[in-house]
Amino acid sequence: MRKTVVGDVDAGVLRFTAGEDCALDAALIEADCIGTAAHVAALAAAPVRPPLLAAREARRVTAELVNIMRRARAGRFRIRIEDQDVHLAVERALTRRLGDLGRKVHAGRSRNDQVATDLRLYGRDQLIGVMGETASLARALAVMGRRNEMLPMAGRTHMRPAMPGSVGLWASAHAESLLDDAVALRAAYDVNDASPLGSAAGYGSPLELDRKRTARRLGFRRAHANVLYASNSRGKCEAAILSALAQVMLSLSRLAEDLVLYSAPEFGYFELPAGFCTGSSIMPQKSNPDVPELVRAKAARVLACAAAAASVVKSLPSGYHRDLQETKDPFLTGLRETRACLRVMLPLIRGLRPCRKALLAGFAPGVFAADRALELVLRGVPFRAAYRRVKADLAALEARDPREAVALRMRRGTARIDFADLRRRESALRRFAATERRRRDRAVSRLLGTEYPSLAGRARA
Amino acid sequence: MRKTVVGDVDAGVLRFTAGEDCALDAALIEADCIGTAAHVAALAAAPVRPPLLAAREARRVTAELVNIMRRARAGRFRIRIEDQDVHLAVERALTRRLGDLGRKVHAGRSRNDQVATDLRLYGRDQLIGVMGETASLARALAVMGRRNEMLPMAGRTHMRPAMPGSVGLWASAHAESLLDDAVALRAAYDVNDASPLGSAAGYGSPLELDRKRTARRLGFRRAHANVLYASNSRGKCEAAILSALAQVMLSLSRLAEDLVLYSAPEFGYFELPAGFCTGSSIMPQKSNPDVPELVRAKAARVLACAAAAASVVKSLPSGYHRDLQETKDPFLTGLRETRACLRVMLPLIRGLRPCRKALLAGFAPGVFAADRALELVLRGVPFRAAYRRVKADLAALEARDPREAVALRMRRGTARIDFADLRRRESALRRFAATERRRRDRAVSRLLGTEYPSLAGRARA
Amino acid sequence: MRKTVVGDVDAGVLRFTAGEDCALDAALIEADCIGTAAHVAALAAAPVRPPLLAAREARRVTAELVNIMRRARAGRFRIRIEDQDVHLAVERALTRRLGDLGRKVHAGRSRNDQVATDLRLYGRDQLIGVMGETASLARALAVMGRRNEMLPMAGRTHMRPAMPGSVGLWASAHAESLLDDAVALRAAYDVNDASPLGSAAGYGSPLELDRKRTARRLGFRRAHANVLYASNSRGKCEAAILSALAQVMLSLSRLAEDLVLYSAPEFGYFELPAGFCTGSSIMPQKSNPDVPELVRAKAARVLACAAAAASVVKSLPSGYHRDLQETKDPFLTGLRETRACLRVMLPLIRGLRPCRKALLAGFAPGVFAADRALELVLRGVPFRAAYRRVKADLAALEARDPREAVALRMRRGTARIDFADLRRRESALRRFAATERRRRDRAVSRLLGTEYPSLAGRARA
Amino acid sequence: MRKTVVGDVDAGVLRFTAGEDCALDAALIEADCIGTAAHVAALAAAPVRPPLLAAREARRVTAELVNIMRRARAGRFRIRIEDQDVHLAVERALTRRLGDLGRKVHAGRSRNDQVATDLRLYGRDQLIGVMGETASLARALAVMGRRNEMLPMAGRTHMRPAMPGSVGLWASAHAESLLDDAVALRAAYDVNDASPLGSAAGYGSPLELDRKRTARRLGFRRAHANVLYASNSRGKCEAAILSALAQVMLSLSRLAEDLVLYSAPEFGYFELPAGFCTGSSIMPQKSNPDVPELVRAKAARVLACAAAAASVVKSLPSGYHRDLQETKDPFLTGLRETRACLRVMLPLIRGLRPCRKALLAGFAPGVFAADRALELVLRGVPFRAAYRRVKADLAALEARDPREAVALRMRRGTARIDFADLRRRESALRRFAATERRRRDRAVSRLLGTEYPSLAGRARA
Repeated sequence: MRKTVVGDVDAGVLRFTAGEDCALDAALIEADCIGTAAHVAALAAAPVRPPLLAAREARRVTAELVNIMRRARAGRFRIRIEDQDVHLAVERALTRRLGDLGRKVHAGRSRNDQVATDLRLYGRDQLIGVMGETASLARALAVMGRRNEMLPMAGRTHMRPAMPGSVGLWASAHAESLLDDAVALRAAYDVNDASPLGSAAGYGSPLELDRKRTARRLGFRRAHANVLYASNSRGKCEAAILSALAQVMLSLSRLAEDLVLYSAPEFGYFELPAGFCTGSSIMPQKSNPDVPELVRAKAARVLACAAAAASVVKSLPSGYHRDLQETKDPFLTGLRETRACLRVMLPLIRGLRPCRKALLAGFAPGVFAADRALELVLRGVPFRAAYRRVKADLAALEARDPREAVALRMRRGTARIDFADLRRRESALRRFAATERRRRDRAVSRLLGTEYPSLAGRARA
Repeated sequence: MRKTVVGDVDAGVLRFTAGEDCALDAALIEADCIGTAAHVAALAAAPVRPPLLAAREARRVTAELVNIMRRARAGRFRIRIEDQDVHLAVERALTRRLGDLGRKVHAGRSRNDQVATDLRLYGRDQLIGVMGETASLARALAVMGRRNEMLPMAGRTHMRPAMPGSVGLWASAHAESLLDDAVALRAAYDVNDASPLGSAAGYGSPLELDRKRTARRLGFRRAHANVLYASNSRGKCEAAILSALAQVMLSLSRLAEDLVLYSAPEFGYFELPAGFCTGSSIMPQKSNPDVPELVRAKAARVLACAAAAASVVKSLPSGYHRDLQETKDPFLTGLRETRACLRVMLPLIRGLRPCRKALLAGFAPGVFAADRALELVLRGVPFRAAYRRVKADLAALEARDPREAVALRMRRGTARIDFADLRRRESALRRFAATERRRRDRAVSRLLGTEYPSLAGRARA
Repeated sequence: MRKTVVGDVDAGVLRFTAGEDCALDAALIEADCIGTAAHVAALAAAPVRPPLLAAREARRVTAELVNIMRRARAGRFRIRIEDQDVHLAVERALTRRLGDLGRKVHAGRSRNDQVATDLRLYGRDQLIGVMGETASLARALAVMGRRNEMLPMAGRTHMRPAMPGSVGLWASAHAESLLDDAVALRAAYDVNDASPLGSAAGYGSPLELDRKRTARRLGFRRAHANVLYASNSRGKCEAAILSALAQVMLSLSRLAEDLVLYSAPEFGYFELPAGFCTGSSIMPQKSNPDVPELVRAKAARVLACAAAAASVVKSLPSGYHRDLQETKDPFLTGLRETRACLRVMLPLIRGLRPCRKALLAGFAPGVFAADRALELVLRGVPFRAAYRRVKADLAALEARDPREAVALRMRRGTARIDFADLRRRESALRRFAATERRRRDRAVSRLLGTEYPSLAGRARA
Repeated sequence: MRKTVVGDVDAGVLRFTAGEDCALDAALIEADCIGTAAHVAALAAAPVRPPLLAAREARRVTAELVNIMRRARAGRFRIRIEDQDVHLAVERALTRRLGDLGRKVHAGRSRNDQVATDLRLYGRDQLIGVMGETASLARALAVMGRRNEMLPMAGRTHMRPAMPGSVGLWASAHAESLLDDAVALRAAYDVNDASPLGSAAGYGSPLELDRKRTARRLGFRRAHANVLYASNSRGKCEAAILSALAQVMLSLSRLAEDLVLYSAPEFGYFELPAGFCTGSSIMPQKSNPDVPELVRAKAARVLACAAAAASVVKSLPSGYHRDLQETKDPFLTGLRETRACLRVMLPLIRGLRPCRKALLAGFAPGVFAADRALELVLRGVPFRAAYRRVKADLAALEARDPREAVALRMRRGTARIDFADLRRRESALRRFAATERRRRDRAVSRLLGTEYPSLAGRARA
């Protein structure tokens, strides 16, 4: 079912409905070409006589799709307002070059499964990127943690100094947070890893197209079991991915908050790399943490993107509705902002410098109080008496060396960090992203008959 | 405090921080020029010797600002990536034409109060538009209601036919909903109607600038009592406006849902104007309600915009933070989408045709059951007996005429619609919007020395 | 239309549907009695022969309703699981005492307009409370601000010291924020100030009940113009009120964040009253700001309550749906939490002690830099040269006295606080709340025939 | 670090801070006892002389914990207001029975890791339940789908009849949706499957407690790599679980919407089981779909719970903050409501009856139009001509049999449902839930020295 405007549609209405698609769809050009190539292959392979598309015709269309992709990469393929969206833009480009052959491509396909396929292809690419970037940032944090495993940093609860802690503990805690988020990213990747192509408008097509083989051609692990669900999953899959991205952004928002606070002059624990701060043309003393501030705020926006997509989908009846178009902007925005934040934080963390002096100065005597009371208890002093004794003479704790207190905890106590575990999880994530990237490249290269990532080769024609 | 980048800021960081501002700020060019003109007037009027700006200088700057506005309207003023934002773009344009005089303009001002002023000016313009459009749509719904006051339409609860109702009741209920939303719009307008100009970076300036007079020059009813709050209100005022817009969108989402449902063939109560539907190139029977579907979904997006702005602001400490930049996109998007929905619904409602036959056919006999039981009760039959008697012979109700049932309720009973009240509230809203528009035009025209809305006149120079 | 369960409803289903109502409805007992009294008066006044309810009967029912209210206040009226909700609990209590007369009360009313009326009555009471408490907290902050108008406190942007500021500026900024929120509270109050009683199931009743007079009896300023909208406004009005409460909570979250930060030992600007902190049984040095931390988090919850109510209502078709029941918990929770926060913050602010020494120590020399550069500029030094000169010798600024810098800004510059304006707005808010409380008391006392707030008098029987 | 109130805490403040915990914590009694038993075992096993707890002492405490669990199950263990929360209630109960031994239990533990452990244990139990219930509902839908694989049901897009579809397609699409959600549930389960016990206040303890062995004792797959992250994960893990639940609720909201619509008299496709509808005491014709309406609305509430938890956590600095307490109510509510919805939908779906007659009547001729045009195209008619021919004679399609159209698609075309895949995924989910339940039971039984699920055995003492 190809939706087109029938009759006299008001120009204002067209602007309202075609809306942002023209601009947003620029992100989907490659995906649309790849999805179309897979559909073309399915048409050519359908067991009917005469064939829906001859093998030679399929090759010509595919070569032209590769051509469009090359032009798009070179900035020479535009979606104009008359096109409404990427699908019609690609269709027109094909028809302009191939005539009637361009028109034959759309048998057995609807704009519904076409756009859904584009979004799954796009989501796959983006999630592979997100996972790789999450792994890199987690590693940078873990590396910083290991390097500063014993560097004292007052541990806080309620924002007040509480117990001996370390920069190692602080940095690698943020690493572990991201690795937990990666579990949700993996799950979202799996949900996304299903091909809707062939589901047409949600009720399939009487044509004998092999949906599973189409899925394999695209490098997806499976086709949906049910064509109506393939349609219903539009928006819902986006919401699931955005939920996972929101988890990542929650982690980043807390890292960012720590950076804003602990680089403030009252703490001075960390110095942000110079290239990441802005100054003031009027206040020479200022060095503003704009990057972590923006990361903090972008977490709010990605959460709102997730909420928007979920809210569009909530309580929709089965089947396609135009509402779903409105999940596109939150989806693209959420992915773009999350990746921008992950990428900007990597060099920031790599360039972050702990200030040993300020860190040591942050150890008010009270930080040692609980440890001291525990020592007394282990020597047999009843707890209440130990507590009173420590409280009565907090000044006596001033002589304590933060480094010893930290060493005690990190070496013998429960605060020891399992860096091997962090490394294992980070490597697994990185490997997964790399494997999936290769899977995708292989499948798409085979489909297009050319080296996909580079598009350097020559499509068979 | 004018934030500029000091030292070696990474190009990637610049892209991250300047972000979307280049594109978004195109909406703020006029506001920035008007705000700058008011600041120039304040500098010229400051009671210091020598004057911060001579009267002649002020006129030259103002004339140049008008010139920029004219170029912007003609599409000949662009914010380039090197400008970062509208403020620097305008500043550079001034300096290019006026040399050092262009640079003098910024004494006693910070980018913080500058952008806050732009947003209040922009918000005022937009809210005047929203209020006018809300009034128009409410009137169209009330007019439709009055015209079809007695046209029967089965009243539903739980989506099932329940009691006699009318198209008049249905349409004017949506009108009243919008008029209730207008109360929130008015409140948001009042909160927005305060000038932050002169608050500088939130701590004022030692210069003797008269903030209240500046407010009057801009046509605002007041300046903030407290310069720190003027700064803190950034983002918060946006969140308040978006909350009010979200109320409007909730009303529109319900109207849209009704339109999707009741124009479906199973009901057929209304026929959407042809220009507002899309067909299908493959299914000749289809007429899809894309416009109401998109309105329904855009309600989700505006709600998310409100959530995003609130979430950015929540728990921020006092004073400016770069986080606030991230409220700009939700603010502009929320206003744009709400207005697009209000505007597209107006001709849709005006062209909506009730289908009498289908409406009458929707009166299953059960719709009359409660009324019939009440008749019996009023004649002295105990309620339980009346209920049993009605239930035993529902078929007897088939002979009833929906028009009589409706007339009974609308004329004598409690369902009578107070159209005069709706009209009164709608007129008050329209008048308020018109009055505020004139207030603004007068103030801005005086400030710029030229007829503002048209910019047709010639600024004094 | 009185919804009851017909046929064999599964016990699990009953638990699912009656749900939380039993517990939640305890808050609505008085409102339900008052609403019922107004309906009784309307029945007695209806212009039909024989009367729907004799005057003497109406007085008996009203007296019994007062009796139920007295029992509820004494904790002797419970809503049991068999009652399902407050409406059936009150109905059964009436019937138990008055027999058939108790049953006659419900003619011309539906559970739909009954619960809507209860919620509007409850919302009115709560909003009057919220407005009064907002005024009190705003006053406490303004009073603190005026008392410490000149007490220096480094003004910050990006969390870093930026410019001279004062405790007066800080405290009264939070006051003004709350007064801005009061505008939204007023608007929500106005939207809530309409009587749905008489709208029955949303399609009115053929009985000649005077909805406007009923509204006056309840002390509402108006009845809805349209009975279907009276029904549709359920949930929507709750969402509007919750939006306004969310504004208040945003203000409180920022005040709370400031309190958490500036009472931390690294700042030490404020000392929270002892009764508002918790210590640690093991760390004698700890004094934790639990109250502001909880306020900060409760802002998140109230925002979520507003989102929940809006999301339930979004895209619902016209007419009653059971979905609306799910707005009750967010509505009651949002009101309860907002009021708890406002109330707990009042003594906290009154007991907050600024620490002069720490505040003065917070003035790093850079805080004076911008002012110094401005001085040079006013003496004719070109800005760039002035900036370089100040930057080259920041140490020279160490001798500056924060008090003088603050005095300059607060007395001559733009940072002067308009306390009179704050006082005017705060008084207007307090007066409005008091006036509305009296309006309500008068109306309800007349309706019940007894002194309402105390229920001390004796209802006419 | 055990937080207690030191000094004169105001009674109102206590009510504000202890808040809802008393009521909410009733859900955590068993978890608190199990967590405490694991900590006791860790103390007894710590490699220090003298032992922190003798083996015999550990057994006595464990036996008493089992005793508390038994009393709680019998409704004889209450958390009183003086207890503040479950932790102090259990501690006091231990001390009452065991004197000083009860007090020794808390060495090396903080209320922070204690509550975090309780929530992970509780979350694990609940998620096992959610997964099992999701599998059951998915199976019921798949079974309904398979039984009605060929039963025609007009497929819709934009709510309008579009193409031939079937009840099989409809029901099993909802099954697949739930199975996709299960991927997110599994991921949330994995994130939750980590023991925070031993992390104390987030900075560990100098005591040599083996956190990994503690994790194994509790049946968790791992301990956190980093104690600070163990603390930071509080709230964040809850947000992740709530996100997954929100996915489930989105699926249920769409199923519910379909049920509300398609059981309405205008469609009549399905008859809801009688026990799941409510009637009206005044309108004998009514049968209201209250259950699906509430499910639809509860989706809004669970989404809001997820938003609340995320919003509390967003931008919190590292380390414990009292804010986190406010994630408890959304967490418990989200789990409770999701499970209630899953459970109530199971018998509803099992009892749902498709109405063949109404389903067939829903096939307007247009539903066959696209298929007919395709037939012509396959016979060589150019598409435009085929389209015109079909459109010109829609009436000719009236003779078509929906059953044949459906059979064509479901047997030969792409709409064939892969029931085996659904069955495989549903079984895997069910097996996973069962396996995890057994793992938990084995671990907890070993830890308590008694048969856990029944608590029938006798703890070693």
